[in-house]
Amino acid sequence: MIQVGIIGAGRIGQVHMRSILTGVQNANIRAIADPYLSEQAETLAKSFGIEHIYRDHRRILDDRKIDAVLVCSSTDTHAQFSIEAIQAGKHVFCEKPIDHDLSKIAEVEAALKSAKKPLRYQVGFNRRFDHNFRALKKAVDDGKVGDVQFIRVSSRDPVPPPAGYVESSGGLFLDMMIHDLDMIRYLSGSEVVEVYAQGAVLIDPAIGEAGDVDTATVSARMANGSLALIDNSRKAVYGYDQRAEVLGSKGSVLNGNDLPSTMVLSTEAGVTAEKPLWFFLERYMTSYQEEMRAFIDSIEQNVDPEVGIVDGRMAIRIALACKKSLAENRPVRIDEI
Amino acid sequence: MIQVGIIGAGRIGQVHMRSILTGVQNANIRAIADPYLSEQAETLAKSFGIEHIYRDHRRILDDRKIDAVLVCSSTDTHAQFSIEAIQAGKHVFCEKPIDHDLSKIAEVEAALKSAKKPLRYQVGFNRRFDHNFRALKKAVDDGKVGDVQFIRVSSRDPVPPPAGYVESSGGLFLDMMIHDLDMIRYLSGSEVVEVYAQGAVLIDPAIGEAGDVDTATVSARMANGSLALIDNSRKAVYGYDQRAEVLGSKGSVLNGNDLPSTMVLSTEAGVTAEKPLWFFLERYMTSYQEEMRAFIDSIEQNVDPEVGIVDGRMAIRIALACKKSLAENRPVRIDEI
Amino acid sequence: MIQVGIIGAGRIGQVHMRSILTGVQNANIRAIADPYLSEQAETLAKSFGIEHIYRDHRRILDDRKIDAVLVCSSTDTHAQFSIEAIQAGKHVFCEKPIDHDLSKIAEVEAALKSAKKPLRYQVGFNRRFDHNFRALKKAVDDGKVGDVQFIRVSSRDPVPPPAGYVESSGGLFLDMMIHDLDMIRYLSGSEVVEVYAQGAVLIDPAIGEAGDVDTATVSARMANGSLALIDNSRKAVYGYDQRAEVLGSKGSVLNGNDLPSTMVLSTEAGVTAEKPLWFFLERYMTSYQEEMRAFIDSIEQNVDPEVGIVDGRMAIRIALACKKSLAENRPVRIDEI
Amino acid sequence: MIQVGIIGAGRIGQVHMRSILTGVQNANIRAIADPYLSEQAETLAKSFGIEHIYRDHRRILDDRKIDAVLVCSSTDTHAQFSIEAIQAGKHVFCEKPIDHDLSKIAEVEAALKSAKKPLRYQVGFNRRFDHNFRALKKAVDDGKVGDVQFIRVSSRDPVPPPAGYVESSGGLFLDMMIHDLDMIRYLSGSEVVEVYAQGAVLIDPAIGEAGDVDTATVSARMANGSLALIDNSRKAVYGYDQRAEVLGSKGSVLNGNDLPSTMVLSTEAGVTAEKPLWFFLERYMTSYQEEMRAFIDSIEQNVDPEVGIVDGRMAIRIALACKKSLAENRPVRIDEI
Repeated sequence: MIQVGIIGAGRIGQVHMRSILTGVQNANIRAIADPYLSEQAETLAKSFGIEHIYRDHRRILDDRKIDAVLVCSSTDTHAQFSIEAIQAGKHVFCEKPIDHDLSKIAEVEAALKSAKKPLRYQVGFNRRFDHNFRALKKAVDDGKVGDVQFIRVSSRDPVPPPAGYVESSGGLFLDMMIHDLDMIRYLSGSEVVEVYAQGAVLIDPAIGEAGDVDTATVSARMANGSLALIDNSRKAVYGYDQRAEVLGSKGSVLNGNDLPSTMVLSTEAGVTAEKPLWFFLERYMTSYQEEMRAFIDSIEQNVDPEVGIVDGRMAIRIALACKKSLAENRPVRIDEI
Repeated sequence: MIQVGIIGAGRIGQVHMRSILTGVQNANIRAIADPYLSEQAETLAKSFGIEHIYRDHRRILDDRKIDAVLVCSSTDTHAQFSIEAIQAGKHVFCEKPIDHDLSKIAEVEAALKSAKKPLRYQVGFNRRFDHNFRALKKAVDDGKVGDVQFIRVSSRDPVPPPAGYVESSGGLFLDMMIHDLDMIRYLSGSEVVEVYAQGAVLIDPAIGEAGDVDTATVSARMANGSLALIDNSRKAVYGYDQRAEVLGSKGSVLNGNDLPSTMVLSTEAGVTAEKPLWFFLERYMTSYQEEMRAFIDSIEQNVDPEVGIVDGRMAIRIALACKKSLAENRPVRIDEI
Repeated sequence: MIQVGIIGAGRIGQVHMRSILTGVQNANIRAIADPYLSEQAETLAKSFGIEHIYRDHRRILDDRKIDAVLVCSSTDTHAQFSIEAIQAGKHVFCEKPIDHDLSKIAEVEAALKSAKKPLRYQVGFNRRFDHNFRALKKAVDDGKVGDVQFIRVSSRDPVPPPAGYVESSGGLFLDMMIHDLDMIRYLSGSEVVEVYAQGAVLIDPAIGEAGDVDTATVSARMANGSLALIDNSRKAVYGYDQRAEVLGSKGSVLNGNDLPSTMVLSTEAGVTAEKPLWFFLERYMTSYQEEMRAFIDSIEQNVDPEVGIVDGRMAIRIALACKKSLAENRPVRIDEI
Repeated sequence: MIQVGIIGAGRIGQVHMRSILTGVQNANIRAIADPYLSEQAETLAKSFGIEHIYRDHRRILDDRKIDAVLVCSSTDTHAQFSIEAIQAGKHVFCEKPIDHDLSKIAEVEAALKSAKKPLRYQVGFNRRFDHNFRALKKAVDDGKVGDVQFIRVSSRDPVPPPAGYVESSGGLFLDMMIHDLDMIRYLSGSEVVEVYAQGAVLIDPAIGEAGDVDTATVSARMANGSLALIDNSRKAVYGYDQRAEVLGSKGSVLNGNDLPSTMVLSTEAGVTAEKPLWFFLERYMTSYQEEMRAFIDSIEQNVDPEVGIVDGRMAIRIALACKKSLAENRPVRIDEI
C-alpha cells in the first residue's frame, strides 16, 4: 500500500483525492496540506476518512510513512515543492506545468539526479491517459497507420478564463496549448524541431489587453519528418472540443468527442446529437484516475512513469518557442530556447 | 440500341423517361402514350426529342420497331397493358404492383408462358437497385454476416397521402409496405412463410375512416428459419426514413439514410446533421436509373431480369396475408392466400 | 447515512457493493451475507472495510441498525428474502426478476402493504438508470417526439449462456427480454395490452434442446395505441448491442451503443470504429451506481422508487404472455395472464 | 438556348460535355475542338449528337452561333485561348489554373476589360459548387456560426501523380492546394493576408527529386482577423479525403466525406463503414454539373459568375506565396507577390 500526501487541496487536488480513494486500490491518502484549506475541502477529506489535515506542507514531507507526494499547489510553487519532496525522499506527481522557467525545471532535474534512491517523478499530462487519445496512440504504436506523416490536434475550451487568470497563467501557449504540444510528441513518438505560431484576439478584448491571444494555431515540424498542426480556441460555444488525427503511410486514425449520451433526436428542425461533455472535469475525469493508477503502479513496480520530467520540460520549451514565434512572426527552432 | 415505348407519362413515367435519356446509353425512347397527357409531359418529351407522342397506347404496341414497353399507367391497367404488350411481342417493365388481385397476375404469367419468344418482364421494385440496399445485399451474399438470423426494415414516409388516394391504393400493406415485404425476401434470399401484422390509426383519422391504417408493423417468419420485423409510418416529420438491418451468425449490416450533405453544425443548441432526403423521388432517383439500366441490359443480354414476375406476385401474396392478419388478429401463413 | 446489508455476494452483489462504496455518499454497507461466500468476495469486502461478513442472511435482518437490504441472491430466493426483509422492517432493493411466479410476487406485494411503516421496494431494472435510455425517456417526457406512435428495442448479447443456465433461467423471455419489456413500458409511459412472439433456435442447438429459443421477436400493442417491436439475440458476435428508438408525432429519438473510445481508423480495408462495450458489466456499470443512488435517495426522501414492485410484476406478466404466445402461435392479451 | 463550344476534349472536357448534355437544359454543345482528339472522345461526342468536331480551336471561335467557350485544354494554353475567345466575343469558362504566371492572368483581365460587350468569365473552382462545401458556406452566410474565427481544410488524394506530371504541374501548391486556398477565401468571405507553408517528401522520393513536396501544411491569416490551417497529402490510402471546418463565435460547421453507401458492417473485427468515394471524378461529379449550370445561368441572366477571374488570380497569388514561404522558411505576405 503506497502512502500518499497531497500538497494543495484546491480543485485538482480534490480530483486526485477522490480518484485515489475510489479507484486506486494500492494507495492510501495519509495526509493533505493546504495553507488556505477551504471548508469544503476539509469536509471532503474528513468524509473520506483522511487521517491528517495540515496547513503546512512540511508536515507531509516530514512524515516518514508517506511514500509519495502529489504537488497540486499553485504553479509558482510546483518546482520548489517538487525539490523539497525529492530531498525528503518522496516520489512526486507534479501538476503541469512544472514551471514556466526552464532553469527552475533544471533544478528539479538536478534534485532528482542527486537523490539517494531512485525516485519516480510524473508530470500531470492527464490526456495521455484518456481512453480516446490512448486508443490513437495504441493504433499508431501497433503500426495501424504506418509511418506517421501528419498530426492534427484541435483543442477548444467552452468558456474563456477570466482575464485576471490569463495574466498569471503564462498565456495560451503555456497554459492551454501545452497539452496539445505534449500530445503531438506523444502521438508521433518524435520530438518537435521547429514551430510557427499564429494568434489572434477574437473572443475577449480583455484577454488581448492582458497581453495574450484567445485563438491560436501552431505549425510544427517533427524530428521524424512529419508535420503537425494545432488549433486552439478559448471559446467554442458548443462545448469542450478535443480531437486529434494522425495520418500515416497506411491510413489515418482520429477521434471524436465524448458525449453525455448517444441519443439522436430527429425532428423537423434536423437530426441532433448531444454536445460534447462540458469541460475538462467532465471530459477527463477517468483520465485523472488512470494517471493516478499509473503513478502508483510506477512506484510499486520500480519503473519510470509514462510521462516524466523530460516530457514536462520539453512541453515548456516548445510552448516558449511558440510564444517567441508569435512575438517575432517567424518560425522558431526549439534549440533556440 | 433497344427501342422503348412508355405507356403512361405521369410522374413515374417521366422519371423513367429522364433516366433513360440521360443515363442509359443502349436504349432510345421512341414513343410515349398517355390518354390524359399533360402539357408538362408533352413539353418534356419534346425537349428530349422523343419522336412519337400518342394518346392511344395501342400505337406503341403496333410499332414493330419498339422492343420494350414501360407500363407506367394507373395500377388498375398494369395487368391488362402488360398482357397486351406481351401479346404484341414486347419486353415489359411494369411498375409495382402488377395488380392487387392474384388471379390477374396469374393471367400475366400465363401470357408470358405462351409468348412465342422469350420476353423479359421486370417489376418496379426500384429499391433493389438502390446503392444502400444493394450494399447490404452484397454483404449478405458475400457471406460477411454469415447465416441470416434476423432482418429489420424501417420505412417511413415524410407525409401521408390524401385519404382519397388511400381508398384506391389497396391500403398501406399493398401500397407502401409492399416494398419492404420485397426487401426482406431480397435481403434474406428466402421466402416468407408466415406473417403477423399490427396496425393503428395514429396520424390521420381520415385514413382510418377510409378503412386503412397509417402505422403498422409486421413480424415475419422466413423459410430459412430467420425472423423479420417491419415498421411503417405514413408520417415521420423529419423526412423519408429508409433503413434496414441484417443480423447473422458472423455479424450485422445496416444502413443509414441518405442526406443532402454531410454537414454537421455545432452550436449551443446541439450538434445537428441534415435531415434525410425528403421523399422517394429525391431519395431513390439513382435507383430508378439503375433499374432501367438493368432492364435494358437483361433484354440485350437475354437474361432474366433481377426482379421478375414471381417477385411481383410474392410481394402481393405477402401483403394480402398481412391484411388478413390485421383483420383477423392472428398469424397468417402465406399458403393460406 | 443509510445503513445497508447485502444478501448474496456473487457477481451482482459485488457490483452493488462497489457502487455504494465508491459512489453513494449517503449510504454505508454494514454487512454482507452469503451462505456460499467466495474467498474473492470476502477479500473484496474486507478491503472495503465492511464490518460484518455473515453466512446467514438472518443476521442482517436481525440487525436493527440496518435500514435497507439488497437482495442479490439466486432468483428462487428473491421473493422469500424480500418478504423476510419487509417483515424485519427493512427497505428492499431486489434484483430482477422478483420471481417467475406471479403468485409469489403477489405475496411480496401483500407483505409490503401490511408493513407497519412505509417501506421502499425497488426492482433491479438498471437500464432505466442508463444515460442513453434515460436521455430517450427525457426527450419523450419533454415532448420532443410528441405523441408516441412506435417503439423499437434491439437487445443482443455477445455470447449465449450455457444451456444449463437456460433451463433454470425461465427462458429468453423471462431472463433476457424482460429488460426490453420493461423498456417499452418505461419509454412509452404506457402499459402493454397484447403481445405476439416469434422465436427460433439459430445459434446453439443445446438451447433448443433445453426447451428455449435463442432468437426472438415480439410485437406489442400498448394501451395508448402505440405499437412496439423487440428483437433479441443471444449472440451478436460484434458485441453487446443495446439500442432503442421512439417515433412520435413530432419526431424520433434513438440511441447508439457505447464504445470503448471514439477512435475511427481509416485504412485500405475501410473506415472502422470500435465495437460496443463487451457485455452488461462493462456497458451498464454506471447505471448500477445510478440505481443505487436512486434507491438510497428514495429512502432518504421518503418517496417511491422510480421502479417499484408493480414494474417488477408487470414485466413478468408480459414475459409470461410472450412465452404463451410463442407456444400457441397467437397473439396473447396481458389480461389472459 | 446558349450555344457552347468546348476547346480540349480530354478527361475534364468530356466531363463538362456530359454534364451539359445530361443536366443543363438551357445549353447545347455545338462544337468541340481538340488537336489531339482521341478516338474515344470522338465516339462520345458523336453518340451525344454533337454537330461539329474540329481539330482547330479557331473554328469554334469563328462560329458566330457559339455564345460561350469552355477552355479545357492544357494549362499552358488557358490564358492564350481565353484571350482569343474573349476577343471573338465569347463568354468563357476556363479550367483552373488560368496560368501559373500572374502577368498572363493580367492579360486575360485586360482583354476582358476591353471587350466590346460584357463577357462572363468563370474559373473552374468546382468545389464551390459541391453540396457539402456549399452547405458549409450557406451556414456561414446565414450567420449560423457567427463571426468566423478559424477555418481548417484537409485535402488528401488517394494516389500521388506520376513524378513526370509533378514537374509540369507547378507543384503541390499551384496544382493541388490551389483548391483549398480558394476554399478558405470562399468559406471566410475574406482575403488571405499572409501565409506560412511547411512541406515534406514522405510518400514518393521521385516527387522530391522533381523538386516538389508530397505532404504540406499552410497557416494563413485572413483580412478579417481569422486564422486558417490547410493540410494536404498526395496519398491517403483510404481514399480521397475532403473535409473542412469553420469555427465562429456562435458555433462550428464541418463536413465529412461522401461515401458509396451508408452501410455499416459490424463483425468481430470491428464496426466498419465505407471508404470515401475514390477520387475527384467520383467525388465531385455533381459539382461539375452544378458549375456548368451556374456558368450558363450567369450568361442567360447577365450576372457575374460566382467564381470569376479575380478568384482565379487570387488563388494563384496565394499559391505562389506558399511556394515562396516554403523556399525561404518564413511567413510571406500576399502583397509581396
